Amino acid sequence: MINIMNSIVTFTSDFGSQGSYTGEVKGVICGINPEAKIVDITHSVGAHNLLDAAYIISQSYSSFPSQTVHLAVVDPGVGSNRRSIILEADHHFFVAPDNGILSLVYQQAELIKVVSIEAEHYFRKPVSPTFHARDIFAPVAAHLSMGFSMSSFGPEISDYKKLTLPDNREIEPGSWEGFILHIDRFGNIITSLKPREIRESCGYDFKVTGFVIQDQKINRHVSYYSEGRDEGVFSLESSGGFYEIAASQKSAAAILNARRGMKVELRVDRIQE
Amino acid sequence: MINIMNSIVTFTSDFGSQGSYTGEVKGVICGINPEAKIVDITHSVGAHNLLDAAYIISQSYSSFPSQTVHLAVVDPGVGSNRRSIILEADHHFFVAPDNGILSLVYQQAELIKVVSIEAEHYFRKPVSPTFHARDIFAPVAAHLSMGFSMSSFGPEISDYKKLTLPDNREIEPGSWEGFILHIDRFGNIITSLKPREIRESCGYDFKVTGFVIQDQKINRHVSYYSEGRDEGVFSLESSGGFYEIAASQKSAAAILNARRGMKVELRVDRIQE
Amino acid sequence: MINIMNSIVTFTSDFGSQGSYTGEVKGVICGINPEAKIVDITHSVGAHNLLDAAYIISQSYSSFPSQTVHLAVVDPGVGSNRRSIILEADHHFFVAPDNGILSLVYQQAELIKVVSIEAEHYFRKPVSPTFHARDIFAPVAAHLSMGFSMSSFGPEISDYKKLTLPDNREIEPGSWEGFILHIDRFGNIITSLKPREIRESCGYDFKVTGFVIQDQKINRHVSYYSEGRDEGVFSLESSGGFYEIAASQKSAAAILNARRGMKVELRVDRIQE
Repeated sequence: MINIMNSIVTFTSDFGSQGSYTGEVKGVICGINPEAKIVDITHSVGAHNLLDAAYIISQSYSSFPSQTVHLAVVDPGVGSNRRSIILEADHHFFVAPDNGILSLVYQQAELIKVVSIEAEHYFRKPVSPTFHARDIFAPVAAHLSMGFSMSSFGPEISDYKKLTLPDNREIEPGSWEGFILHIDRFGNIITSLKPREIRESCGYDFKVTGFVIQDQKINRHVSYYSEGRDEGVFSLESSGGFYEIAASQKSAAAILNARRGMKVELRVDRIQE
Repeated sequence: MINIMNSIVTFTSDFGSQGSYTGEVKGVICGINPEAKIVDITHSVGAHNLLDAAYIISQSYSSFPSQTVHLAVVDPGVGSNRRSIILEADHHFFVAPDNGILSLVYQQAELIKVVSIEAEHYFRKPVSPTFHARDIFAPVAAHLSMGFSMSSFGPEISDYKKLTLPDNREIEPGSWEGFILHIDRFGNIITSLKPREIRESCGYDFKVTGFVIQDQKINRHVSYYSEGRDEGVFSLESSGGFYEIAASQKSAAAILNARRGMKVELRVDRIQE
Repeated sequence: MINIMNSIVTFTSDFGSQGSYTGEVKGVICGINPEAKIVDITHSVGAHNLLDAAYIISQSYSSFPSQTVHLAVVDPGVGSNRRSIILEADHHFFVAPDNGILSLVYQQAELIKVVSIEAEHYFRKPVSPTFHARDIFAPVAAHLSMGFSMSSFGPEISDYKKLTLPDNREIEPGSWEGFILHIDRFGNIITSLKPREIRESCGYDFKVTGFVIQDQKINRHVSYYSEGRDEGVFSLESSGGFYEIAASQKSAAAILNARRGMKVELRVDRIQE
């Protein structure tokens, strides 16, 4: 049973880099599965920011080998009657509160199964109403990483919660509207618009004419960052398959005064064959 | 010998997340014990802040399995004649400077044994007078994680240093004074007041009437964060067993302009049976 | 082959602590070598700052056991025609872009061999032109940590890139000029001047008379931080073998208004025998 597991537990949260919270969670995991390899993704998700967490989790999980357990905790509703869940998606496992934090995984994964965590005998007792990451999610993740089946923890459910996200939509022929999904450490702006989805949706090949963020036009599309050297803001394809707005060794977000959630317009030209 | 050890070495410091200091320490540990599992607690302890470190260590250690080695370094006196120590407490080991950083572990642990580190043949040579974490504490922690007994490193001592902390005290019947021990990433305020200790001290059951911080009253006591939704600042029990002041998805510390060390008053009402 | 490797992969970058980038890289490494022990050095290198990264890498690597693989990514030229390299130095391996990030290792290591990474069948496909850390460096580092020889990845080269750094130079007898290499979390200033190099260069024993940074004189030289207690700014030898300017429990950098790259003058007095 344990042999086929990979024993990796990734850990994403909004607990910050200071304090003892991440340490307490790791301690519980190590205590249950001494073979677990805990891999920090980040603990600097914006406090209580479910969309930020959803993006980070959806971007990072598929780089890991299958059977990895991904612990994902941004949990403003901790202690209330919101459910705790396990998601199996594309042969990865996710342990999280049922508050929409896994929304972007639901969107992009092919095989999805969700279980509501109800088997209290796995929990760390007493369960603190303010720290389910330590007392519920960590023990469940640790047991999953040892090969326990997800059905051990509770019944399958289908009414798990999803974030209401603005849809990417075609506002007129050749013009698409999305929003700013994420801004990275360098000030690069990741939009919600995906070249592959737009191509599938419009059914023809196209080239990017430009982007508009807050009435500011970005009319240069390149392949890599330093190609846009010293020439202001430009667009390119992100490493995660989204359209991205960047500036060479500068912060595009600062230049454009852009913030997460803002609208982004994309204009394309059909390539005639 | 090694079999009964768990090979986990936790690491807490004020070295910050930038720079090479934490990496150098981890390298020394890996070089001595290739089986060591190094678990970062945090390196964002306030610079030179012993009380901050003491709180974080006391909160995190007990989640780990017994025999874990906890490396704890906030060390403004590095290179001076302050001693280096190993503490065994509740079947956990702590390696640290003897400057009071383990004060809250001394308070809460039942079985305590302290050794002064004097066996220089374990040290990394030459010992830098500015980096004992790398040259003294890391090698000692690594050897402990391999099962070396703590008596290998020096003689037992009883005059180890403790921080002088303000006592929690009953200022009049039903009114207790403590102080702010920690403020977490979310702005939640952890006080030094523990429900369990107060109940033991007064000998009767009670309910919380309210808290006072800097003449500001907090009169709502709840069980979990989202129970206090949109209704200002409230109190609850922290996941570590202290009274905590919080605000739903806001920073209570910012709202109350609270800082670590400030006085906190608790008022309780006796429950008549 | 795998037995003689130590399977440690250290990871230094400017990716920041937020976001998914470090997680994606770690996932790829874990997927290729499940036995890899990934050790974070820091991901808070100044964005695009090659000198900062060069310093951190040169300081941290030698604490690790030989055969360690060091993944080092600050990569403003990602996707362009800059090469990717493996460096073997002092029995350590480094995987990095060929942009000078390893300059200080070249300076301090004795045995150096550099290979240009060209064996594309090791890469993660498709290779994103904006994320070689995930798609090129991580797979190469993972394979190296499994014992693959560096010649598997490409031909040896000798024209690898080095940063142009100001030389330390003797400006008049007993007076040396260097620059600020690094400022640590505590505000301690690490200079480029090394006691050992100066002694070798001048050929006589000396004692430090003082330092000058921006017309501000530092005339007190001590052995450890708390020796300088409450007496302003002082100099001492850093744990990495450089001259360092510090202040007891205060930030010397803030007091002197010092920034990386500024000139530093050292004055010494010859010790007559």
